[in-house]
Amino acid sequence: VKHVEKKAHAPTSVDTADTFWAHIEPESSRDLLLASLDAFAANGFAAATTREIAKRAGLSPAAVYVHYRSKMDLLLEISRVGHVSVLAAVDAAIAGVDDPAEALRLYVVAFTAWHAHNHTLARIAQYELSALQQPSAEDIRGVRDQFLAKLSAILRKGKRRHQFEVSDVHSTGRAILSLGIDVSRWYQPDGPLSPDDIGRLYGELAVRMVRAMPAAAS
Amino acid sequence: VKHVEKKAHAPTSVDTADTFWAHIEPESSRDLLLASLDAFAANGFAAATTREIAKRAGLSPAAVYVHYRSKMDLLLEISRVGHVSVLAAVDAAIAGVDDPAEALRLYVVAFTAWHAHNHTLARIAQYELSALQQPSAEDIRGVRDQFLAKLSAILRKGKRRHQFEVSDVHSTGRAILSLGIDVSRWYQPDGPLSPDDIGRLYGELAVRMVRAMPAAAS
Repeated sequence: VKHVEKKAHAPTSVDTADTFWAHIEPESSRDLLLASLDAFAANGFAAATTREIAKRAGLSPAAVYVHYRSKMDLLLEISRVGHVSVLAAVDAAIAGVDDPAEALRLYVVAFTAWHAHNHTLARIAQYELSALQQPSAEDIRGVRDQFLAKLSAILRKGKRRHQFEVSDVHSTGRAILSLGIDVSRWYQPDGPLSPDDIGRLYGELAVRMVRAMPAAAS
Repeated sequence: VKHVEKKAHAPTSVDTADTFWAHIEPESSRDLLLASLDAFAANGFAAATTREIAKRAGLSPAAVYVHYRSKMDLLLEISRVGHVSVLAAVDAAIAGVDDPAEALRLYVVAFTAWHAHNHTLARIAQYELSALQQPSAEDIRGVRDQFLAKLSAILRKGKRRHQFEVSDVHSTGRAILSLGIDVSRWYQPDGPLSPDDIGRLYGELAVRMVRAMPAAAS
């Protein structure tokens, strides 16, 4: 069976693959999300207008309100998709891994590479923090809490097994997350390192940050 | 001699001490910078208006243009003050320190604590990157380059003396800077750690990231 080549889409500044948003239905809702992502990325959330977003999506301004109540709703939905996606990537990376050093490394590789691959989406999800203060963002805040909770669980396991030297689990966890998050601020696709290269380097740095020792033979 | 208590200023959301801006003359220029800092911090650069900035400074909109040609000029000046200040803090911290592990630690302590202390200013200087793309921002870009250049020099010295294990100096340097920069994104003055506490922890983490060894006895 020969694979049919995928039709080229209209050019977009968005770095995330179309498949990333494939579950959003109907298509005009999805188009509006992608158009918002572009608009927020270009000038920030505060400066974007629903008129501009509609235009980028090839829809009338009124059509925006058929699908979303407000610009904030669009931001929340973008942020939700981003947070759920990176959590899924991390969960898949550490699933079934018992050794804390290996779990830490795989967590950071996945988290960092995701932030490089999806740097436009990540930048909006991480830096447009007004969205997170909305009452309706409770589910996103819940996902956010899991990043530090899951990382802290790995750090505590490593301490318990005398494999990690960590004085402050919470703050060390936050520092490790900062490494990955900040990649979305500076990452340029034309740089010398690929998202996976950066992920691997940062995975090694995180393992060093906790002075990980090999597990004692059991 | 009894010190006369400093008169309370009008409340401002700005975390940076007034003394930070004391060299900016005349006073109305300084007031405009502080007002811009507040306005940009509240809603981002793109959404701020010169009218709003003038109002926050207690001046007429026309008065803005007496001192600055544009909103972008205000952003550039804020960014310049911030970049020069953090570079001065880092330079003072590492001056005359020969041991690379100690220089690395002191660099990161100063860089990180600065980003926590001055988180509002830092957030604007680090995340409103449109300012840096201005042709007139050449001097700021020059200061920015020095952060990585000075850090890389420390990392290379540590490698040369066989005290550091660093495979990729540039990328490791960037990761170490990310730790400090990202503090300005999440830092809240009411958190459990002070700026200096965070600085000290991150200084130790950076030393671990390069697997620093004590200098061999000479």
